[in-house]
Amino acid sequence: MNTSEFRRRGKEMVDYVANYMEGIEGRQVYPDVEPGYLRPLIPATAPQEPDTFEDIINDVEKIIMPGVTHWHSPYFFAYFPTASSYPAMLADMLCGAIGCIGFSWAASPACTELETVMMDWLGKMLELPKAFLAEKAGEGGGVIQGSASEATLVALLAARTKVIHRLQAASPELTQAAIMEKLVAYSSDQVVATLGTTTCCSFDSLLEVGPICNKEDMWLHVDAAYAGSAFICPEFRHLLNGVEFADSFNFNPHKWLLVNFDCSAMWVKKRTDLTGAFRLDPTYLKHSHQDSGLITDYRHWQIPLGRRFRSLKMWFVFRMYGVKGLQAYIRKHVQLSHEFESLVRQDPRFEICVEVILGLVCFRLKGSNKVNEALLQRINSAKKIHLVPCHLRDKFVLRFAICSRTVESAHVQRAWEHIKELAADVLRAERE
Amino acid sequence: MNTSEFRRRGKEMVDYVANYMEGIEGRQVYPDVEPGYLRPLIPATAPQEPDTFEDIINDVEKIIMPGVTHWHSPYFFAYFPTASSYPAMLADMLCGAIGCIGFSWAASPACTELETVMMDWLGKMLELPKAFLAEKAGEGGGVIQGSASEATLVALLAARTKVIHRLQAASPELTQAAIMEKLVAYSSDQVVATLGTTTCCSFDSLLEVGPICNKEDMWLHVDAAYAGSAFICPEFRHLLNGVEFADSFNFNPHKWLLVNFDCSAMWVKKRTDLTGAFRLDPTYLKHSHQDSGLITDYRHWQIPLGRRFRSLKMWFVFRMYGVKGLQAYIRKHVQLSHEFESLVRQDPRFEICVEVILGLVCFRLKGSNKVNEALLQRINSAKKIHLVPCHLRDKFVLRFAICSRTVESAHVQRAWEHIKELAADVLRAERE
Repeated sequence: MNTSEFRRRGKEMVDYVANYMEGIEGRQVYPDVEPGYLRPLIPATAPQEPDTFEDIINDVEKIIMPGVTHWHSPYFFAYFPTASSYPAMLADMLCGAIGCIGFSWAASPACTELETVMMDWLGKMLELPKAFLAEKAGEGGGVIQGSASEATLVALLAARTKVIHRLQAASPELTQAAIMEKLVAYSSDQVVATLGTTTCCSFDSLLEVGPICNKEDMWLHVDAAYAGSAFICPEFRHLLNGVEFADSFNFNPHKWLLVNFDCSAMWVKKRTDLTGAFRLDPTYLKHSHQDSGLITDYRHWQIPLGRRFRSLKMWFVFRMYGVKGLQAYIRKHVQLSHEFESLVRQDPRFEICVEVILGLVCFRLKGSNKVNEALLQRINSAKKIHLVPCHLRDKFVLRFAICSRTVESAHVQRAWEHIKELAADVLRAERE
Repeated sequence: MNTSEFRRRGKEMVDYVANYMEGIEGRQVYPDVEPGYLRPLIPATAPQEPDTFEDIINDVEKIIMPGVTHWHSPYFFAYFPTASSYPAMLADMLCGAIGCIGFSWAASPACTELETVMMDWLGKMLELPKAFLAEKAGEGGGVIQGSASEATLVALLAARTKVIHRLQAASPELTQAAIMEKLVAYSSDQVVATLGTTTCCSFDSLLEVGPICNKEDMWLHVDAAYAGSAFICPEFRHLLNGVEFADSFNFNPHKWLLVNFDCSAMWVKKRTDLTGAFRLDPTYLKHSHQDSGLITDYRHWQIPLGRRFRSLKMWFVFRMYGVKGLQAYIRKHVQLSHEFESLVRQDPRFEICVEVILGLVCFRLKGSNKVNEALLQRINSAKKIHLVPCHLRDKFVLRFAICSRTVESAHVQRAWEHIKELAADVLRAERE
């Protein structure tokens, strides 16, 4: 494909994407396919000669779309949101074209420097303590990881390296293995210290945990994967209180801040804690500025060596929405979850299981787990909306998460009417 | 930004991308900026109100491009190639729009199933042993990781879990820590068993290492991050001989197979070795098909939970190039590296340091490390081409890697003329 064909096909793809987003409400949110549906639809081997673009785009509708769970449908209320916005998509196109690999400053200075500054922008939007910012001469700073799991793993490895160095300095006769056998990582019943758990969006109390960790010289990693985005609104910022006790903090703009996956934002107070754990310096990655103390080589901050120019997405989204636009987006989602909550509370057959704080409502029919499992099964078989469940202690609970960028009050109302009808069917079937 | 504005801006971005690729040869391959150049050029905080798209795209040229190392310039010969092709970019646009997170089959069946089939396609292109394929009922199969580092980590963790289970079954009194203290991971002087090292593209002998590993019941992970793409050509396939002894195998189509970053292809012979090490089953991720044995939940195959629909890129690229087109692309690069090699060999001042097998030429001026360091310094200061060095034993060596999709013989010739001129300067300066 030459450049002039790309101009044509690229514009067709822009229209395909725009049509998909515009018409997504009309697509069934959860697919009808059974496991193994796809293999018989495509050849067993790659073609020897090129296929045409028309063939491929036709196959997208015929083969791919029937098997897609439409995460951006306004009837998708499952898991947690995954971000999607037009500014992020535009930035991703540019990111693909530049196609640099930003493992060191020299490998593409703009890639490293925009990331450091965007992480400062975002840190300031959250009112993170200054110790987490890089600014001109800070000891802390931010890095984009691929996922909260990677951020947690990086924090664990950095914490482990730090404590091993400390103990070996005190007792040089100790082997690394002997130390590692004694190491303990504490976590809550959902994970690390978490602000906004996946199960039910509950919050650990950093103001209680934090001072203990600091006193005992324990690394405190705080994960706010979903909830973190909300902290850009002053009325939710108090949920982050205590982060000043943390060594590292992470949340996912790719969940709820309109920056398409992947973009997991992680900050540390001492960047040398990370670079001490991950340093990798073969000759082919050395460059003249690396020991100047002026630059950041992000390969020392993460598991993979390679990395895309992901900060472009943050830059486009933050600028094209503005902080106020992003705040309005968060508030709209929270308002819709409270709207759903109040509908549930008005129906005496149902109960709310956990206080609704952000965009997630955990609810159930008063009654057995069996009746709630039956309700969920009917909801997901009907495929008009899509939900997933959770267990809270021994109770089977339905999760209603506000997810889509385009979800409105009307969708929430329709979803609730639909749930009520199916609940009536379930309760009738139970009585019979 | 609403959908109709996206239609307009998306098409403008397609043109921006096409113009960038078309004009890349005219841009200086390595930037002039100094560390810290970017921060003073942009505000210290995100804007409260939205900026316009025009402002942003103007800033791309003013602020970003001056700090970009142009990896896709035909004068970029540093590191190893990172893939870039129009079909992959088109697929990425679609991937961004669908925006599903494929951690389980149910989270988007097409995302999981296309990946499994594409990994079979690619495995067949490489003539991998059948044991690595998923097909309809195989025990093996492939998964897309973000990077070769992740694939290696996943293999290490799977190997560790497997051996711990085996030893604990034999000696139940052993603690995990006591076992871990005794575990050994062997590697070559460059890394795991490697086909095509980053330093100089050397090859470990799998036919020697493999049988020993199998006899001693040791996990063998083979990493062919760069070289793997070449194995789709029959004349290079012999370099992969011995992979039949491996437990896991990995290479990066995002390096040399025209599938934009990130796309690191990993296969295992026993998928239960991975899923045994990484299994994660909270209620909210359970779905009705998961225990049927029919489906793949890729979250058990990797470190992160989330994952994008990356197999779309493979599908678009394999179909729009065809196997023959991909082979032709590999062969052109290998031919260009041999062309450069023969230019070097014709000049008695220079030597070739390692046999040229694929797209990398390791060469140097006969003489001291100092004179070669001076030559590289002149090359990278002139910024007409970009190279990085390596150390082979105690020698400082220049690496000339064929990287860009659009590099032609004329660029290689021009690069060599330029290197010769600078070498003459260096040698003259040394004599004076």
